[in-house]
Amino acid sequence: MNNIKKIRNTIPELGCDAVLLTNDINRLYATGFKSSAGALIITKDEAWFIIDFRYVEAARQTVAEAQVVQLPSGKSYGDIIESTIKDNGIKSVGFEDTLIPFSTHKEWLDKFGAELIPAQKKIDDLRNVKSRADIEQMIKAQRISEKAFAEVLALISTDMTEKEIAAELIYRMLKNGADDKAFNPIVVSGTKSSRPHGVPGDEKISEGFLTIDFGANLGGWCSDTTRTLCVGKPDDEMVKVYDTVLKAQLAGIAAVHGGVKGVDVDAAARDVIQNAGYGDHFDHGFSHSIGLEVHETLKASLVSKDILPVGAVISAEPGIYLPGRYGVRIEDTLYITEDGCENITNLPKELVIL
Amino acid sequence: MNNIKKIRNTIPELGCDAVLLTNDINRLYATGFKSSAGALIITKDEAWFIIDFRYVEAARQTVAEAQVVQLPSGKSYGDIIESTIKDNGIKSVGFEDTLIPFSTHKEWLDKFGAELIPAQKKIDDLRNVKSRADIEQMIKAQRISEKAFAEVLALISTDMTEKEIAAELIYRMLKNGADDKAFNPIVVSGTKSSRPHGVPGDEKISEGFLTIDFGANLGGWCSDTTRTLCVGKPDDEMVKVYDTVLKAQLAGIAAVHGGVKGVDVDAAARDVIQNAGYGDHFDHGFSHSIGLEVHETLKASLVSKDILPVGAVISAEPGIYLPGRYGVRIEDTLYITEDGCENITNLPKELVIL
Repeated sequence: MNNIKKIRNTIPELGCDAVLLTNDINRLYATGFKSSAGALIITKDEAWFIIDFRYVEAARQTVAEAQVVQLPSGKSYGDIIESTIKDNGIKSVGFEDTLIPFSTHKEWLDKFGAELIPAQKKIDDLRNVKSRADIEQMIKAQRISEKAFAEVLALISTDMTEKEIAAELIYRMLKNGADDKAFNPIVVSGTKSSRPHGVPGDEKISEGFLTIDFGANLGGWCSDTTRTLCVGKPDDEMVKVYDTVLKAQLAGIAAVHGGVKGVDVDAAARDVIQNAGYGDHFDHGFSHSIGLEVHETLKASLVSKDILPVGAVISAEPGIYLPGRYGVRIEDTLYITEDGCENITNLPKELVIL
Repeated sequence: MNNIKKIRNTIPELGCDAVLLTNDINRLYATGFKSSAGALIITKDEAWFIIDFRYVEAARQTVAEAQVVQLPSGKSYGDIIESTIKDNGIKSVGFEDTLIPFSTHKEWLDKFGAELIPAQKKIDDLRNVKSRADIEQMIKAQRISEKAFAEVLALISTDMTEKEIAAELIYRMLKNGADDKAFNPIVVSGTKSSRPHGVPGDEKISEGFLTIDFGANLGGWCSDTTRTLCVGKPDDEMVKVYDTVLKAQLAGIAAVHGGVKGVDVDAAARDVIQNAGYGDHFDHGFSHSIGLEVHETLKASLVSKDILPVGAVISAEPGIYLPGRYGVRIEDTLYITEDGCENITNLPKELVIL
C-alpha cells in the first residue's frame, strides 16, 4: 500500500496547499505503515511522515515516499505539524473533517495559522476503490477466515458455548496467519439468533439456527462473512426463511455492477423478502463497503444515496429476524466489476444441519 | 455500571440543559450497555437511550435509568436526537467535544437549534475515578490475563514465533472468560525488544529479552501488564538494565498517592534510570490511566500537568530501550488510594530466564 501519489492528486480539486492525515487508517492507506499515532503531511512536491520514537525504527524501513521525521521528546504531534506547515509556507490544509474531533480542529485553527478544508470525502472516495493488488490481499484475509471457519465447523457441538466458538474462530484465524480479527465474531444461537448484533454468551448453543458472523484482518485488510447453520432439524418455516434469505442474497448479487445505485441493489434483495411476507423483518441494509475498516462509507440500503463504483468491495448480507423466535443472515463479499461482481467468498451456502 | 446520576450531577456546573453521549465508551460508562451505535440524552429529570433495532431487545433488559427508545427505520440518530431536544425544550447541550468529529458538530449545530457546550473533560474526570465495584471488575480482568500469561509461560519455546505467542495469549484470555483482548499483545524478542510498540512477527523468538505486553477486556474493563523475560542467560549489562527498570518502577510506585502530580511520579522513576546512565533511553511516560479504555486521559510523564486523584487506576511502566540491541519494560497497574496505592498486578517481577 502506497497511496501518497493518489492523495497528492486530490490537492488541486480540494484547492489546498497540503493534505494532513492523522487518522490511523488513513495513514495506513497512504503509507502501508501501521501505528497508533503519527501524522502525514503531503504537498504537491513533498511529504513528511512524523512518528514517535516507539515506531521510528520500523517506519524508516517501510515508508518510502515521505521523509520520516522523528517526533522530538517533549513535543506534541500538533507542535511538529505546526512547524512543518509554517516552515513550508503552507496556507491551507485539507483535513479529515469526519474524523478529527471538534476540539482538535479548534486547536489546529488557533495554532497553524492556515485555512482548514474538509477533505475526508475525497480520501473515502479513493479508499472505496480497491486496486487488483488490494483485492488480492483482501482475498488472502478472506481465505484465512474461511480456513478457520471450516476448522471450527468440524468442532462445533452442543457442548460448546457461544463464547467458546468465538474464541476458537479467533484463535484459528490467528494461527492461520491473520494479524487480528477484523471484529468480534457474532455467535448467536437459538432465539438469540434473532439479534443481528447479539453478543456471544456463556450459554451452550441451543437447537435451532446458529448465526456466525466473522472476519480476519491481514495487513490492515478486513474480511467479513456470515453463515447461519441449523442445530437439529429445521421445521418448514425455518427452511422457508433460510431459502428466502438465500434467494434475496442471490437477487441482490445479480443486481450489482459498476455504477449501480446502492438503493437499487438493496431493493433487488428486499423485494424477494417482501414477496415472501417478511418485509418487516429485514431491518438493515444489504451492503456496506469493506476494506481497511470492516464498515467503510458506501452503503446499499433503503436510504442510501451512494453510487457503487467499479473496484468497490461490498458485503451482500440480507437477513430475516423474527424477535423471540430466530434469525437468519447470509453474507458474502463482492468486488465490483464493470459488468457485475466477483464474489470473493468461497464457502457453500446450502443450509448446514449440525 | 450505572453512572447516569453522576453525569446528571455535572449539568449545573456545565451550565447546560442536557448532556448528549454518542461515544460507545461513554455510553457504556453511563448505562453498562455495550453497542456499536446509540445515543443517550440526560436532563435534570429525564434520560432517553436511543438505540437501533439490532440492540433494542437487549437494551430493554439492561438499561434501567433511561427510557429505551427504538430508532425508527429510515431515521438517523441525528433525527431522533433533534426531535428529543426540540420536544423537550432543551436549549443547550453538553457534548463530547474531544470525540465528536468536526463534521458532526457542524451538522448538529445546524440541526438542533441548541447551543453545544464542551463536556468531555467532566466525563473524563468522572471516568478517571473508579469505584470499589469498578476496581473489583478490573481485578477480575487482571486475573484472567495473569492466568493466561502463566499458561503461555509454560508453553514458550524457541520453536514458537512472536505471533504464535500472541495468539496463545489471546486464546487463553478468551478461554479464561475475557470478552476480548484489551489490545493486540506486543510480543517482541531479541533486538526487536528495543521497539516499545513492536508488532509480533513471523520469526521464531530469538535469544535475549522477550517483552510481552498484554491485557484482557471483561465487561468493558481493561487490564494492562508487561513482563520482560530472558531467553538464554543475560549478560552483565542486561542484568543491570533489567534491575534498573525494576528499581525505577518501584521508586515510581512508592511516589504514588491521591493528589500527587503526574510529573512527580514520572520523575521518581526517571531519576533512577538517569542515575544509572540510561536517561536518554526512557522516551515515554511512566503512567497512563486505564479503565474502559486501555489508555484513558490521565498521564504521569515528563510533560504531564495532571493531578492523580484517589480512585484513579494507572499503569506503572518504565522502560529502557537500546536501539539495535534490546529493551526492557515492566508494567503493573495501580489503584490510587489516599496514602499510596494498591498494586492490582499479581505476577512476580524477578527476571525469568527461559
